[in-house]
Amino acid sequence: MPTPSGPKGTRDFYPEDNALQEFIFASWRRTCHRYGFESYEGPMFESLELFTQKSGAEIEKQLYAFQDKAGRNIALRPEMTPTLARMVAARGNNLKMPLRWFSIPRLFRYEKMQKGRLREFFQLNMDILGIAEVTADAELIAASIDMMGDLGFTAEDFRVRISSRTLLEELFLAAGLPADRCEPLYALLDKKSKIPESVFAGELAGIVPGETVRDAVTKVFRLETLDEIKAMGIRLPALDSLERLFGLLTQYGLAGYVTFDIGIVRGLAYYTGIVFEIIDSKRSLRAIAGGGRYDKLVSLYGGPVTPAVGFAAGDVVLAELMKEKGIAPPHPARSDFFLIAVDNSFQEALIAFARELRHCGLACEFSLKNVTVGRQLALANAARSPYAVFIGGREEAAGMVKLKIMATGEERLIPRTGAAAALAEMIEGSPQPAAGQVT
Amino acid sequence: MPTPSGPKGTRDFYPEDNALQEFIFASWRRTCHRYGFESYEGPMFESLELFTQKSGAEIEKQLYAFQDKAGRNIALRPEMTPTLARMVAARGNNLKMPLRWFSIPRLFRYEKMQKGRLREFFQLNMDILGIAEVTADAELIAASIDMMGDLGFTAEDFRVRISSRTLLEELFLAAGLPADRCEPLYALLDKKSKIPESVFAGELAGIVPGETVRDAVTKVFRLETLDEIKAMGIRLPALDSLERLFGLLTQYGLAGYVTFDIGIVRGLAYYTGIVFEIIDSKRSLRAIAGGGRYDKLVSLYGGPVTPAVGFAAGDVVLAELMKEKGIAPPHPARSDFFLIAVDNSFQEALIAFARELRHCGLACEFSLKNVTVGRQLALANAARSPYAVFIGGREEAAGMVKLKIMATGEERLIPRTGAAAALAEMIEGSPQPAAGQVT
Repeated sequence: MPTPSGPKGTRDFYPEDNALQEFIFASWRRTCHRYGFESYEGPMFESLELFTQKSGAEIEKQLYAFQDKAGRNIALRPEMTPTLARMVAARGNNLKMPLRWFSIPRLFRYEKMQKGRLREFFQLNMDILGIAEVTADAELIAASIDMMGDLGFTAEDFRVRISSRTLLEELFLAAGLPADRCEPLYALLDKKSKIPESVFAGELAGIVPGETVRDAVTKVFRLETLDEIKAMGIRLPALDSLERLFGLLTQYGLAGYVTFDIGIVRGLAYYTGIVFEIIDSKRSLRAIAGGGRYDKLVSLYGGPVTPAVGFAAGDVVLAELMKEKGIAPPHPARSDFFLIAVDNSFQEALIAFARELRHCGLACEFSLKNVTVGRQLALANAARSPYAVFIGGREEAAGMVKLKIMATGEERLIPRTGAAAALAEMIEGSPQPAAGQVT
Repeated sequence: MPTPSGPKGTRDFYPEDNALQEFIFASWRRTCHRYGFESYEGPMFESLELFTQKSGAEIEKQLYAFQDKAGRNIALRPEMTPTLARMVAARGNNLKMPLRWFSIPRLFRYEKMQKGRLREFFQLNMDILGIAEVTADAELIAASIDMMGDLGFTAEDFRVRISSRTLLEELFLAAGLPADRCEPLYALLDKKSKIPESVFAGELAGIVPGETVRDAVTKVFRLETLDEIKAMGIRLPALDSLERLFGLLTQYGLAGYVTFDIGIVRGLAYYTGIVFEIIDSKRSLRAIAGGGRYDKLVSLYGGPVTPAVGFAAGDVVLAELMKEKGIAPPHPARSDFFLIAVDNSFQEALIAFARELRHCGLACEFSLKNVTVGRQLALANAARSPYAVFIGGREEAAGMVKLKIMATGEERLIPRTGAAAALAEMIEGSPQPAAGQVT
């Protein structure tokens, strides 16, 4: 017999767990909608080459990679951006730029388990393609901040830390670092906060053997503000665009959420400009989201040159933070109305009433077994229904049904004729979807 | 360079394609909600054993099966029911029965490509667990019919064809068939309509060698109505429950949608009672959905005895039928309002207005490049925005903005102060989600 749990690093979402997932996804969709983003999706697996081509053969270690029955090398997708770039490349110049695209992909990484990391997880991906200007970076970062606000987080909970790969490169070159040493240095910097200082120093000495340059490079890491960099008085074109970005974010009213942080480099190799992370204020090591500009990826996959900027936010850390902060919503009611038969007329009257309620778009259910009224009330509680409707008995003879508000115990009589419409109006506060139920 | 398309049998969902997917999923969720169903999810892959245990080693041929880096045999899920049964079994008696659970899983089958079949697809799964009575079968079939109605289908488009494995077994045994021949006969019957008559006859002779029994069994296949079966005058307990099911569906007002069809057996081995299919009226070979009762599956996975009934409907056939019938919705607007700068004040005024609109829950965007008004209007059309808002120029001096209805060209002046709230009220017909945007 298989183990009752699923594979290691995966999750079973029972309804109470899945309610939180759906809350997060719905909130993500609302944010994207307000910013004019449209959703796309791609295959859950891609050719292995799509990932190794971008990130090197090294990446395969972290992938669920396998051969299909025809011997093709495929891999479960570890991130969405390669698929996005492939899809954009495939349509060539037939897509009307700019694109504002989002997706909520399910992703897979074969990696060591740790808090906030699983082998199977979801992400929100938002990308703007076709705009080289920093206005797109600003719009995207604004959306990422509103994404946090939509979930219930405030300025106390998180910060967006922003840097620029280009600025870092300009500073490193000015410090005398050979151009081919920049890439390995980004990779080292990205893990700086996760490794002991001695390990960092050792690896740094490997990448930058000369002491003079190493000292100059180390000074770059310590730069704290854009003003400090400006005061260096050297020509740094990337500094202008970073300053313009902060200016735009001030126009968005978001200056209080963003900070320059030269330590932000992002692990992925494909970033070409501004990079940013949303970081939990309390435990500054947990990245909630990360993103940046990647102007060369679409052309790498054979598409036209397409400037692009995007970010991804994972569900695992967000859900944990929401629970810690107490903003995870309670498990919602399974149905608005639980119908209760007070005599043996039982099924037929309940079915008829349920048809009417459902036709009005209301959620309802009833016991599928002929049990006592007390047992039916217990089922109504188990379904977390805010209302019970008693059908039959004396009330029926008087042409009425009895509504009970479960939280207070308050009862009210409602004429049976037109009852569904009356109940729909009663809970109109939470508008119901139009029902296309057959009649 | 990898091919620009994804792996064989998978789909890329560009926004116009994904809009239809999301329309279908949202419709499915509304149906489920009205019937008091709660959503659950599970891992995208499971141990291979979870599938082979239920369906035999044979199933592996149709699976994406592979080993993970620790040598575990895993498979991408080809259906959701094994995961559902595993999850219910894992919680043992801690789940409050009955469960009304739904899921919209993404599934994978390595099979030959044909119309309506892909290697990667989505399904709606609805299941009621914990009710042995046929009332659950009726509630579930009613939900499946409303699912069709919610998508825009009518009684002309489809039919629910219902039979009972138990009834078939009782009839076969009465015809003299040995009990151990029933299973292979179900499998043969399930493919009857898909294979030539001569092949069918040959396989039938293999399963039922004796001519007398074979003739009697063949007569069973030809039974067309419940009345005809009743007239046989033999003891058939399953007939009573099937008649009760049709009686209940009449109470639901759905008699016009359902037909008894002894030819419905369903391919899966785990069904134990009533089975049904929703079949496209025009081309009677295309099953839109299929389901039935499976009372033994949860205990097979080590859980308590749990009666269960469920169905699954696939997205591929449904989307095709919707397109054929012309009920697939048009590609919705990317945003409600496209903001247009009429002078060089450009970005700042647009950003401020966008913040206000988005704060009211409205979807809006603007050009991220400083381009002419004509080009901005072209972008508004590309975004399919029903409204453009012109900001700046003479109107701004007068404290106004100009609203343009894109479809008619009609223009209207609106006071800049309070404009966002006024526009929100204007399109209130389609209520907007409350925005939790940070301020």
